[in-house]
Amino acid sequence: MAERLKIPGLAGELAAEFAGTLILILFGVGVVAQVVGGAIGDHDSIAWAWGLGVTLGVYVAGRISGAHLNPAVTVALAVFKGFSWRKVLPYSLAQFLGAFVAALIVRWNYTEILGKVDPGHTIKTQGVFSTLPGNGALPVHTWGAFRDQVIGTAILLFLILAVTDLKNSAPAANLAPFIVGLIVVAIGMAWGTDAGYAINPARDFGPRLASFITGYGTAFRDQYGGLYFWVPIIGPIIGGVLGAGLYQALVARFLPAETEEPGRVANDPELEKA
Amino acid sequence: MAERLKIPGLAGELAAEFAGTLILILFGVGVVAQVVGGAIGDHDSIAWAWGLGVTLGVYVAGRISGAHLNPAVTVALAVFKGFSWRKVLPYSLAQFLGAFVAALIVRWNYTEILGKVDPGHTIKTQGVFSTLPGNGALPVHTWGAFRDQVIGTAILLFLILAVTDLKNSAPAANLAPFIVGLIVVAIGMAWGTDAGYAINPARDFGPRLASFITGYGTAFRDQYGGLYFWVPIIGPIIGGVLGAGLYQALVARFLPAETEEPGRVANDPELEKA
Amino acid sequence: MAERLKIPGLAGELAAEFAGTLILILFGVGVVAQVVGGAIGDHDSIAWAWGLGVTLGVYVAGRISGAHLNPAVTVALAVFKGFSWRKVLPYSLAQFLGAFVAALIVRWNYTEILGKVDPGHTIKTQGVFSTLPGNGALPVHTWGAFRDQVIGTAILLFLILAVTDLKNSAPAANLAPFIVGLIVVAIGMAWGTDAGYAINPARDFGPRLASFITGYGTAFRDQYGGLYFWVPIIGPIIGGVLGAGLYQALVARFLPAETEEPGRVANDPELEKA
Amino acid sequence: MAERLKIPGLAGELAAEFAGTLILILFGVGVVAQVVGGAIGDHDSIAWAWGLGVTLGVYVAGRISGAHLNPAVTVALAVFKGFSWRKVLPYSLAQFLGAFVAALIVRWNYTEILGKVDPGHTIKTQGVFSTLPGNGALPVHTWGAFRDQVIGTAILLFLILAVTDLKNSAPAANLAPFIVGLIVVAIGMAWGTDAGYAINPARDFGPRLASFITGYGTAFRDQYGGLYFWVPIIGPIIGGVLGAGLYQALVARFLPAETEEPGRVANDPELEKA
Repeated sequence: MAERLKIPGLAGELAAEFAGTLILILFGVGVVAQVVGGAIGDHDSIAWAWGLGVTLGVYVAGRISGAHLNPAVTVALAVFKGFSWRKVLPYSLAQFLGAFVAALIVRWNYTEILGKVDPGHTIKTQGVFSTLPGNGALPVHTWGAFRDQVIGTAILLFLILAVTDLKNSAPAANLAPFIVGLIVVAIGMAWGTDAGYAINPARDFGPRLASFITGYGTAFRDQYGGLYFWVPIIGPIIGGVLGAGLYQALVARFLPAETEEPGRVANDPELEKA
Repeated sequence: MAERLKIPGLAGELAAEFAGTLILILFGVGVVAQVVGGAIGDHDSIAWAWGLGVTLGVYVAGRISGAHLNPAVTVALAVFKGFSWRKVLPYSLAQFLGAFVAALIVRWNYTEILGKVDPGHTIKTQGVFSTLPGNGALPVHTWGAFRDQVIGTAILLFLILAVTDLKNSAPAANLAPFIVGLIVVAIGMAWGTDAGYAINPARDFGPRLASFITGYGTAFRDQYGGLYFWVPIIGPIIGGVLGAGLYQALVARFLPAETEEPGRVANDPELEKA
Repeated sequence: MAERLKIPGLAGELAAEFAGTLILILFGVGVVAQVVGGAIGDHDSIAWAWGLGVTLGVYVAGRISGAHLNPAVTVALAVFKGFSWRKVLPYSLAQFLGAFVAALIVRWNYTEILGKVDPGHTIKTQGVFSTLPGNGALPVHTWGAFRDQVIGTAILLFLILAVTDLKNSAPAANLAPFIVGLIVVAIGMAWGTDAGYAINPARDFGPRLASFITGYGTAFRDQYGGLYFWVPIIGPIIGGVLGAGLYQALVARFLPAETEEPGRVANDPELEKA
Repeated sequence: MAERLKIPGLAGELAAEFAGTLILILFGVGVVAQVVGGAIGDHDSIAWAWGLGVTLGVYVAGRISGAHLNPAVTVALAVFKGFSWRKVLPYSLAQFLGAFVAALIVRWNYTEILGKVDPGHTIKTQGVFSTLPGNGALPVHTWGAFRDQVIGTAILLFLILAVTDLKNSAPAANLAPFIVGLIVVAIGMAWGTDAGYAINPARDFGPRLASFITGYGTAFRDQYGGLYFWVPIIGPIIGGVLGAGLYQALVARFLPAETEEPGRVANDPELEKA
């Protein structure tokens, strides 16, 4: 397909990463605000809306930028799939910026609700924006949360590579974004206990900064008072590379070499050129 | 595809908009009646059934009218996609009429239940039919609800344009209606706190009038006694244009100019002619 | 496609209707037994599992018989789509038999649980197998339930015709069974209050008889003591014809005459021959 | 398609079965750990995440090994679909090993949570890893659980054969894995009361052994003290063959002999060669 596409320039790719991550976080942080602030819905709502946010964000950005929406994805694709290292930092910044702006919009829209439920903007509702070990309540500390972020993001990247691998049985009819969203639904239901399944440095740090500058003074710390913000940044980067590598070792190298089938649409222009 | 289709006349388009919006509201108002009146299900049921109502309404009307089912969609497509301005009012009236008739059917079917739960037909069950600031319970007022409706409908239109844009990675195999429904599921889970996610003037005003003429004397007012009915009309119109414009600015202009692929089916005959 | 298919004989069609309805009821009655008997899950589980049972039953029977799985569907297709009137009774009997056998299997598997929760096999768990006005608890009587069954089945048939109409925008890639299942998920969430959304005479009467002969002496009566079994038989037959007729009047007659597209797979061999 | 594929060797197939079952159990055992250990989510979360785990595991392994992920599937395909008997034991071992390793990873990640909720690692949280009659709480004993496992796995295999049968109306566009996952969602909602729907010897015995060697001394016994581990091994093997045989008898033999359609992608290389 590379021949048919005129790959747009970096500006378009960054706009797409910005817009896709914005959509992701409008739903992801939005649903936690609704559940925690408005007491509407429960943890399953959170799992579904995060996953649907991924699906919709990927539909927004897929054609232009490949819809990474996550620095852990961008780095893993650079390591294993030939994604340009020179683009890693710009993509990551665009993702962070999209998440930051989306979190400000949610913060604005939920002003009255959060002001009522938690007037001091404390750790009580800090988790609306960024993750905490044990979701701020369960007996998990830094190390347990770090381990969890490595494993959770390894699962994410292992599966993203699997369901977008045209040599494997990737969904056709442009429905891969739907299945990619279901990965995140399932991670939310099964791997959200120890650290709130950030599995995405931009998802976590963008909203964390947005909440910090709008009244959440403890945003960079966990419920024990320690600096925590680095865990959902470093853990996912390591986990993503690990998971992508495991997919290569356990599955990809056994796949038959096959030419791309017409009618299938890839999600990543980088992959298409490979 | 425009060549293959004999675009039916306006009568057919209006019948399709009427029927599609009727289906949408039979499920949308129906599920709130079941949850609030019958105490069967919870907020997630509401989010899913509204979204599935959208999916099914779009399947009903998609081929004939493009399945706008929402004046905010119709106006935004007129502003950005060349949809005929002369059709904007007829489409909106057909949508309103479909929502009105559907709400009367729900009202009729839930007569005994609503009569038992709320014999005076007060603001207690008024929210079955039309939206209220903070869903009638949370501390949100007119301005907060208006802001919410602008943002929520901006998200809706941004995403409708994204997932039906044949130059982007729109779902094929006639499955766009399913994904469009998932947009509304996700909005219901993440953007339903401040104003009950009307995001559609016909969805709100049709059932509001139906409830007014069947015993809900306060239907045009909110829980504070103020006139409220205009908020979910004006807010969505503004938000829809805003969101569609943002999609054009952030994403559409970076998409490669590509001819329509055979095998893909558009949802909007107007778009096809563009 | 009619040319490619060798339409199997009536024996195969009846086996398919039997098997498809068996699958539908194994999930449908099974989930109510799990929720009511085992206290595992809630009303949303019921809505989802019923809908998924429809999806899976249609995948089983779709190619051979068209997967009606419901006498109300069979009758409506005979009235409006040229389905052979001579097959209406055999199809309906096969559907009833499938539902009957499936309910016996559920009855057997849940023996210990139902025996513990309701040792007398009373109206307390009768609703596991067959429907009751107001689900046995809400203040709805025969007439309200009858009205509800007419409307609910009208919605069902209106939408089945819509999403399987190849002239409309029916889902391709053999995914119509998934969307048809979602219709029933949505009906369960929005139209299940007044009469437990039987919307299918075989679904209701087969399990009702199965429960009657295995200890539920009141199976043919409602919580008020009146004979009730006829409501979810007569109501759906009338409603199905009404809904199918409305689809023809409001939507189908405005659809462009178009030849069947290659690559689309119909669900009903009768429709294919039309 | 057999011509286009270079069927990879047994090593690749076993790696794929290992990886696919690993993914399945990372979600399946993970979600129970989250619900039971972390009190996040409810039974519906369990049903959805198990099913999505199946979907994602099938996407991982489908192209290489056919994604059995379950000895009951492997045996049934050997009996009815010509799958090589010589591969049955290696496939089963790879599946068991994948489940075992995945359960160890979940055990590790949930160390703090399980240690807090159940410091003695008793039967209280044993059900996180392996199944119990009546889920450890309801009055079901060995025989009831055995019956349930036979029936539940019969339903599973009946439906797996149905939705992957290219002569029937199998989903195209590589979306069969999604529908196969929905089978397991529905079984979890309707057939999970008597024995926790193992329906897969590898799913049950792998995590059972993993929990035994990490502190759960009673892992091979049920809440009554009897040896139970064999029930979710023997029951599913028998049930799988039964269900696959019923599909052949009730449905498959009535299907028209049809050549494989181009554009459809099978999930099982063995089936493709048949």
